[in-house]
Amino acid sequence: MSLANLVNHQIRLAARPVGMPTAANWSHTTEAVAEPAEGGVTLKTLALSLDPAMRGWMNEGKSYIPPVGIGEVMRAGGVGKVIASKNPAFAVGDYVSAGFGIQEYITVAQDEMKRNGLFKIDLRVGTPTQWLNVLGMPGMTGYFGLMDVGLPKAGETVVVSGAAGAVGQTVGQMAKIKGCRVVGIAGGAAKCEWVVKELGFDACIDYKAGAGSVRAGLKEHCPKGVDIYFDNVGGEILDDVLAKITRGARIIICGAISQYNNTTAVQGPKNYLSLLVNRARMEGIVVFDYADRYHLAVAEMAGYLKDGRMKSKEDVVVGLNTFPDTLLKLFNGENFGKLVLEVAKD
Amino acid sequence: MSLANLVNHQIRLAARPVGMPTAANWSHTTEAVAEPAEGGVTLKTLALSLDPAMRGWMNEGKSYIPPVGIGEVMRAGGVGKVIASKNPAFAVGDYVSAGFGIQEYITVAQDEMKRNGLFKIDLRVGTPTQWLNVLGMPGMTGYFGLMDVGLPKAGETVVVSGAAGAVGQTVGQMAKIKGCRVVGIAGGAAKCEWVVKELGFDACIDYKAGAGSVRAGLKEHCPKGVDIYFDNVGGEILDDVLAKITRGARIIICGAISQYNNTTAVQGPKNYLSLLVNRARMEGIVVFDYADRYHLAVAEMAGYLKDGRMKSKEDVVVGLNTFPDTLLKLFNGENFGKLVLEVAKD
Repeated sequence: MSLANLVNHQIRLAARPVGMPTAANWSHTTEAVAEPAEGGVTLKTLALSLDPAMRGWMNEGKSYIPPVGIGEVMRAGGVGKVIASKNPAFAVGDYVSAGFGIQEYITVAQDEMKRNGLFKIDLRVGTPTQWLNVLGMPGMTGYFGLMDVGLPKAGETVVVSGAAGAVGQTVGQMAKIKGCRVVGIAGGAAKCEWVVKELGFDACIDYKAGAGSVRAGLKEHCPKGVDIYFDNVGGEILDDVLAKITRGARIIICGAISQYNNTTAVQGPKNYLSLLVNRARMEGIVVFDYADRYHLAVAEMAGYLKDGRMKSKEDVVVGLNTFPDTLLKLFNGENFGKLVLEVAKD
Repeated sequence: MSLANLVNHQIRLAARPVGMPTAANWSHTTEAVAEPAEGGVTLKTLALSLDPAMRGWMNEGKSYIPPVGIGEVMRAGGVGKVIASKNPAFAVGDYVSAGFGIQEYITVAQDEMKRNGLFKIDLRVGTPTQWLNVLGMPGMTGYFGLMDVGLPKAGETVVVSGAAGAVGQTVGQMAKIKGCRVVGIAGGAAKCEWVVKELGFDACIDYKAGAGSVRAGLKEHCPKGVDIYFDNVGGEILDDVLAKITRGARIIICGAISQYNNTTAVQGPKNYLSLLVNRARMEGIVVFDYADRYHLAVAEMAGYLKDGRMKSKEDVVVGLNTFPDTLLKLFNGENFGKLVLEVAKD
């Protein structure tokens, strides 16, 4: 394939948002597609992973990775195909997972491949969107957060917020496989029904069902209290769960989507002294720390996908240019399953 | 000694406080002193331990131990002497540590001794007030919180709030002995000077030195960040430290004295997402969990007291009836060293 005629449409961060991102935070650019240098590859984007963490990358200041710079292509992981290669490890037509950014093509130099996170994916193991979901970063986050930080034991009660999201799906299904009682928290009856009927959670609490619904739901569905809470949302729900933890409970802090678009300070958990009373632990997780064991988690969960013990659901929205609006589905809780932006058909 | 002529002065919880306790929360009563039944002992109070945790015991509701009931003698640990014994394990004149309550005498039945926490103390190991401080509950709290939850490694930076208090003294000195860099946080120049000059901390930040003093002090004295934070105070200081923790940091939640007299909700740590960014852990400790290892910590720290590597300071106030006012010294930060109420001379 000649790259000379290709146009790369891109979406760049134009300004840092205050509160919810708007169209004014983005600029749309086009570029030619660069030929790969010796050892490099050029990739075509098929689908991009949209994740709550993106909101944090748009902010200035120190975090677990540097922010996206103003004028830079917005950071995003995705799956795609090799369309040009000067590297013997990659053949044209190979499927890969990589840090594509919100754009249609990317050329990756050999010495950038590790930092980029580029690796070949095997479609016999999972579909491209499963490689963005259970087998991708969200899945790895859920797997290692639950297994390495949560340390689940059979019979324990595990609660996970964002239960219908990418991380939540993985956490809840893994916890069921490990013999736990699993209670999800999700927004809306449809998500809750799916989480229970399709994913096999023991119960799911609809946090949109009115004031006090989480508290009432925890009381009903966690009669022995909460041994592990995997928190993707923060805010009031974190406080509600803190009030119900058991002695020695583990709380995994994975995210706080309820707080990401705040224009005031983050709401700290006012029930944090429940950690003292219950000798409990609250601990943060960043998935990159487990990179040397991703392959083990992928192998384990691919097996569960194959034998039907695990399912995955992706919410696929088509069109690179929809990105600014599509991203907001995460913050409105509109996505049903792992949110994926389809950029090109295979 | 005949017990028949003794009068036991007591202070009882009369009403649950809202905010700072006042005289109206207490009642003063007198009782005869009961003879011990077979297997029991009668004890004379010498000194009582006044601790921030007392404020929590005055509230209604579930905590790590039941609240003090309205009309009950206020709960307090202390040291005293056996004045009557029908138990071969205790002789008249033996010194003991026990759950005396705020009163001059207590008679303990044999089957209550374990729950009461009654045990003989050896004055060759430590003075009576040291048995309430480094060798008592605060010392055990500091020792096991630091060693078992904090997991200090030589060269790490340890920050402890309430540094001149009973728990803080123990934590900081133990951390120094374990080879850590130790930075205290205390109120006032005199306490800070003592913590550095007498206890050998590397630095001490005076939180009363004006707005931003903790942030500035942490920046100056913790150039590599904070690896372990032992928190006795909560509030703004917890947030200031959260902003400076290192990757993999451990925060021990031992107390939150800044919040105990709130009439509004506890202030949750708004910087708690620093736990995520730094893969850090915040964990509660309750000292009772380590009861089967108290003797080991006492033996170790008694050695340090003997060889001069560890010092202890007690702030002794005389007179049972001063209790309602003396207790407030803790919440105003007026106590300098472990606060002890002397009830009787030996």
